[in-house]
Amino acid sequence: MTGDVVSLEDVEAARDRIGGVVHRTPLDTSRTFAELSGAASVGLKLENVQRTGSFKIRGAYNTMAQLSAEERESGVIASSAGNHAQGVALAGDLLDIDTSIVVPEVTPAAKVEATRGYGAEVIVEGDIYERSYEYALERADETGETFVHPFDDPAIIAGQGTIGLELLEQYPEIDTVLVAIGGGGLISGIGTALKAVEPDVRVVGVQPEGALHAKPSLERDEIHELADVDTVAEGIADTRMLETTFANAREVVDDVVGVSDRELATAVTLLAERAKTVAESAGAAPLAAAVSSETDLDLEGEHVAIVVSGGNVNLTEHAELTRTGLHQLERYVEARLAVAGWPTTVGDVVETVESEGAELDVLERARRSNVDHPNRVPVTIGLEGSGPEHLIRVLEALSGLEGVSAVEHSLD
Amino acid sequence: MTGDVVSLEDVEAARDRIGGVVHRTPLDTSRTFAELSGAASVGLKLENVQRTGSFKIRGAYNTMAQLSAEERESGVIASSAGNHAQGVALAGDLLDIDTSIVVPEVTPAAKVEATRGYGAEVIVEGDIYERSYEYALERADETGETFVHPFDDPAIIAGQGTIGLELLEQYPEIDTVLVAIGGGGLISGIGTALKAVEPDVRVVGVQPEGALHAKPSLERDEIHELADVDTVAEGIADTRMLETTFANAREVVDDVVGVSDRELATAVTLLAERAKTVAESAGAAPLAAAVSSETDLDLEGEHVAIVVSGGNVNLTEHAELTRTGLHQLERYVEARLAVAGWPTTVGDVVETVESEGAELDVLERARRSNVDHPNRVPVTIGLEGSGPEHLIRVLEALSGLEGVSAVEHSLD
Repeated sequence: MTGDVVSLEDVEAARDRIGGVVHRTPLDTSRTFAELSGAASVGLKLENVQRTGSFKIRGAYNTMAQLSAEERESGVIASSAGNHAQGVALAGDLLDIDTSIVVPEVTPAAKVEATRGYGAEVIVEGDIYERSYEYALERADETGETFVHPFDDPAIIAGQGTIGLELLEQYPEIDTVLVAIGGGGLISGIGTALKAVEPDVRVVGVQPEGALHAKPSLERDEIHELADVDTVAEGIADTRMLETTFANAREVVDDVVGVSDRELATAVTLLAERAKTVAESAGAAPLAAAVSSETDLDLEGEHVAIVVSGGNVNLTEHAELTRTGLHQLERYVEARLAVAGWPTTVGDVVETVESEGAELDVLERARRSNVDHPNRVPVTIGLEGSGPEHLIRVLEALSGLEGVSAVEHSLD
Repeated sequence: MTGDVVSLEDVEAARDRIGGVVHRTPLDTSRTFAELSGAASVGLKLENVQRTGSFKIRGAYNTMAQLSAEERESGVIASSAGNHAQGVALAGDLLDIDTSIVVPEVTPAAKVEATRGYGAEVIVEGDIYERSYEYALERADETGETFVHPFDDPAIIAGQGTIGLELLEQYPEIDTVLVAIGGGGLISGIGTALKAVEPDVRVVGVQPEGALHAKPSLERDEIHELADVDTVAEGIADTRMLETTFANAREVVDDVVGVSDRELATAVTLLAERAKTVAESAGAAPLAAAVSSETDLDLEGEHVAIVVSGGNVNLTEHAELTRTGLHQLERYVEARLAVAGWPTTVGDVVETVESEGAELDVLERARRSNVDHPNRVPVTIGLEGSGPEHLIRVLEALSGLEGVSAVEHSLD
């Protein structure tokens, strides 16, 4: 290691270490996303199909493979409620190192099971992540276990940087890469690899608006810490970078942009519908930035790499995100009808929706509220359609039905 | 063409024709699915990321690229409410051939839009698909347009067969391939390519139990027609094979197995959760067969290719399928609680669910039914957890809460 700042050689050494263990993930080019973003081409680097469902195994394995025989014997400890937990657990399994993962109390059982499934011991400690983190550090002091940090470590950064080397091979025309920033390990690694070989490649970080700490940090050239964070993208809901990631990121990151939670949900939806791939919110952040009309990224005519960093999301949550995304895209509408002639009129409603080619997702006899006419039955429906004009056409057709006396809905 | 039966040379010629236009789709190996099926390895052939979202472009392009200048001038017509429509439309766009697609009246507007998006003229005609099909044939007679059949054509079969050639390169260790059967064009093509090069490869068709026509047809060696079909997998909800597909399928198909709609939903769920890929029900059928405990397929120690044939599914429908699949996997439960002390007790319910590490997907104050105690408030909840033991633990914790006097639920 060359001090705190990671070099191309460090990343190349990491590649040699993790080769044969970690997947070389696919790069999928997408015409649709090129059109939506104005780019000449868009390449999706699919780390969501990486082993453990995210890029985290790269850094974890690279770090743990460098431990001495004595350190391996003493085992490894980490704190994480998410992807890092699984990365460390699998690396431990592959390297025959005992691993303990400290998770906060509210960690979903499914994530605990996944981590245990790779052979880690899971320790539930702390009401919030910070407490789990402190506990893990304390315990490492007592037991002699090596603490593996989720991002602030040159070996972690070098491991994540192997994605940059793969991009250079898979997508040599690359002009800009978009990478999500949580703690900053991923973008530091990728940026290091890319800039060392192709200094003109633009490296852009993407953060949720509710956790936008790296932008002020890099603009002011000092670490900025947020008092709190508020975003659906829990995988990148960090309050700050730490020393090592900051020292690396400031060398290689050209710009940072923020995206809203609504844009994140839309990007998750576009990835599912157009690229047929399941991404977690954090993994969809770079696409959100690319297709956003709010950022001043100019991607016109560029070849743009988008790192889809992970796909570990509960399917019920994924379903909620895509429904939100369809709302944003004005492809989904909820409406409340006031209906006379229950239930016959409801049959007409269903027929009308079908003949207009919309999908009836939900139909419920609703509770009466004081805005409803007392001799009408309120019925709520949820519809998926091809776009706002289509949905409005369907709603107008419903308004015209005999027995339907009011249609309130969520479109403008 | 060698009569009605397609040869390896036909498939190789198709490959030359479609190369550079059609994606060579990835083959992803999956450890999880190997474990679940007992196979030595499982390779997912991801035709859901093919252009237009399914394999259909292969056959459509191969067929239309062979039309004479005169035929091209007169245009092409097809009938389809689904993937074939988009395949023909895109092939027409690429080959500069006018295309007309006849769709039945209930076709979702989103599919109509997608087909129009590739430049096709969409004609809405017929209350069911058969009427659209007849109308397209009649119109072809009148206008001189060439009718492009969705499966029963040697050129279509040869085009789909190019998947078999790719499998031989991407997965040379292949012992068995599992392919969904609707009309039988896909399996006829893939089987032709595989058997010609590796006669020992086992070619197994998969159909929904509610549309299981190919199994009796091949067993009795005559086409069996079903009176009706009933399956969630609309992409393969056919009643019979036709002459050409039957003549080809009987040469190359070793076995056909049926899967239930529940197994299809489970397979869609596993593909989303484990492989991070969005498949339509028909596209998930081969995986359903591989992991089913009901079929007598013996995959032990084999290298098994699974063709994920398409991913064109509404996201609201995908969400419903995955919720059904989580039910089947006993990872999701709906429960009805009788609650005293509304709303305070509901706060306790939420806290208990969280502290037990389950995800609260739904919580509703329900309507009273006559089985409820009149001075309790009925509350319905939907929970995602890591497995049946976990969910039962959560439900028991809820039963033990003060103020909760009954918990009915959907687990056994």
